[in-house]
Amino acid sequence: MERQRTFALVAQDCLARAGELRTAHGVVRTPAFMPVGTAGSVKGLAPWELARLQPEMILANTYHLLLRPGVEVVERLGGLHRFMGWHGPILTDSGGFQVFSLARRSKLSEEGVEFRSHVDGKAVLLTPEGCMEAQRKLGVDVAMALDVCPPLPAPPEVLKEAVERTTRWAFRCRKALPPQEGPLLFGIVQGGLDLQLRRQALHALQALDFDGYALGGFSVGEPPQAMWEAVGTLAPELPADCPRYLMGVGTVRDILEAVAAGVDLFDCVIPTRNARNGLLHTSCGPVVVKQARYRFASTPPDPHCACPTCKTVSLAYLRHLYLAREAAYVVLATVHNLHFYLTLMRQIRSAIIEGRFAELRRSLLAEPAAAVEAS
Amino acid sequence: MERQRTFALVAQDCLARAGELRTAHGVVRTPAFMPVGTAGSVKGLAPWELARLQPEMILANTYHLLLRPGVEVVERLGGLHRFMGWHGPILTDSGGFQVFSLARRSKLSEEGVEFRSHVDGKAVLLTPEGCMEAQRKLGVDVAMALDVCPPLPAPPEVLKEAVERTTRWAFRCRKALPPQEGPLLFGIVQGGLDLQLRRQALHALQALDFDGYALGGFSVGEPPQAMWEAVGTLAPELPADCPRYLMGVGTVRDILEAVAAGVDLFDCVIPTRNARNGLLHTSCGPVVVKQARYRFASTPPDPHCACPTCKTVSLAYLRHLYLAREAAYVVLATVHNLHFYLTLMRQIRSAIIEGRFAELRRSLLAEPAAAVEAS
Repeated sequence: MERQRTFALVAQDCLARAGELRTAHGVVRTPAFMPVGTAGSVKGLAPWELARLQPEMILANTYHLLLRPGVEVVERLGGLHRFMGWHGPILTDSGGFQVFSLARRSKLSEEGVEFRSHVDGKAVLLTPEGCMEAQRKLGVDVAMALDVCPPLPAPPEVLKEAVERTTRWAFRCRKALPPQEGPLLFGIVQGGLDLQLRRQALHALQALDFDGYALGGFSVGEPPQAMWEAVGTLAPELPADCPRYLMGVGTVRDILEAVAAGVDLFDCVIPTRNARNGLLHTSCGPVVVKQARYRFASTPPDPHCACPTCKTVSLAYLRHLYLAREAAYVVLATVHNLHFYLTLMRQIRSAIIEGRFAELRRSLLAEPAAAVEAS
Repeated sequence: MERQRTFALVAQDCLARAGELRTAHGVVRTPAFMPVGTAGSVKGLAPWELARLQPEMILANTYHLLLRPGVEVVERLGGLHRFMGWHGPILTDSGGFQVFSLARRSKLSEEGVEFRSHVDGKAVLLTPEGCMEAQRKLGVDVAMALDVCPPLPAPPEVLKEAVERTTRWAFRCRKALPPQEGPLLFGIVQGGLDLQLRRQALHALQALDFDGYALGGFSVGEPPQAMWEAVGTLAPELPADCPRYLMGVGTVRDILEAVAAGVDLFDCVIPTRNARNGLLHTSCGPVVVKQARYRFASTPPDPHCACPTCKTVSLAYLRHLYLAREAAYVVLATVHNLHFYLTLMRQIRSAIIEGRFAELRRSLLAEPAAAVEAS
């Protein structure tokens, strides 16, 4: 039986692609940026506020939900969509990255990775099978395979072993979550900046017929140029009939470079974290809200922006809320920054469909440098 | 020339009153509860979120705005309404209470009160004239006279001197902000639990033809019963053709008692502060969200509530957000608690107009005690 494709290309403009990914909770129009809702909440946004921004898909973290409130709690409450009051598509990462970066005393074996919860210190064993079970119980639309994420840069032999184990785990993940059962499953290509290693990994993963392929382990400290080059080489080699996901990336510039290479999906904390830390992304470049020059700024944070924040308040007011540590600041700033990113993605998609992506990319890169590179 | 009345009674049910206060930014239907927006923001709520709750009037604090961002900033940005994106009526307190409770090293003289800003330690002199000027610059709808607020309970002679100075300052406030110039101006009756002292103060204030009269210095540690009795005696003695405002009060029970005595306006941090601290007001009594019993609570925080929060998420989800210290928790909980208070006020007003306030009061007081007494 021919397996039904969940991903279809709508347009291609050089290597850049506009596509549609069908999920159980709706179609994801790509290229798409996923706002990060780590613990089942995009920080500061009530569910209706998130819905109003109309993201195509959001990301949540299996690791965080596993530790709190617990996958069983979410399952008993009807799954993650119902739990968090978001009824569009959800992708969860596998927790691999967090286990290696957040958990205490993680101990890696072929079986899985054992670690102490950063919430309550409890010992947890995360195996490929358990990770698939968790994401299935969460009821998400797209699950990610469990990967091994050594701190990068890593010595070649460490990197190689991590990649090989990630591949063996990918087999176990696919076995635990076979095609057309529960969520879509994406495989993750690791390998740092070693292109040959990444190609070997990709080759092995392709045999498993994943529903999408992700590039992991980028934007972890390497120079942006190095990432752009590696992604520029690798993205076109990922299966053309599946969505391609560049994990944890990135700046506007990063996104433009990756889309140009044929990447379809992104997630990143940049817009939301920057918002909380007082940096706004605007069409005129980055705005550091606390600056004294904005004390009397009666204009919106971004005069060209149509988001609820820019339609309602002045930059001076945002500055005041930030300095006074008012809780509403996070709401207003997050709404704006996410609107900025999501609008950008819609512009990119339209440009691809209309065959003028190169032009859009050039014009965006010509804008105040920091507008596209702020991270 | 006969001065035009800004307040009109719509109905009276025993001593309870339903009225309409006309302000420059709309009519305030009383009895009304004012959400507290201390620093020009109801904590956690974007302006559109506040607007959706449709409060009749909100309260902001002159003291806080004076210190940050500064009255001049707000004025240059077009006044407080425009600054905070709230276009309904605003009342500001005078800052008297905060100077005596928050400021460092306050020094009281006949001229005014000098203090150190709790924000940056700068010395500030607040005089009755300066206080009126500040509220006029903020462009609010209702200004409050500057009062002297000694810590209560106070020795009789301290209390008496504070009340007499408040009266002398009231003269200066009225002179600085005469009738029909700028904001409406309310006088404040102080005097602790000494009814005779309060009556003398009221008598003196009435000669100044204020647009409304407030009872200050209640709910500052005295037993609730003592406040109910004092307010029960004093409220009916306040001018019947002006709005009566019980400052900083209170619990649902407090409000019911005061409305029964003829009070028209209230403000209090209870619903908003309780929300942040994890206590929800519901029709089934108070809910302490962190309790383990709510771990799997798939029902809304209040099954009988029509607020956006209760229409969208479960109590278990709110509990999760609270425990995970997620910023969205404050939004969701504040929306609910304010909706609870504002709905209560609308019920009270309807009941008064329909002549069944006593019945409503009885039925509310018969509910789970803490539903009306939680503070």
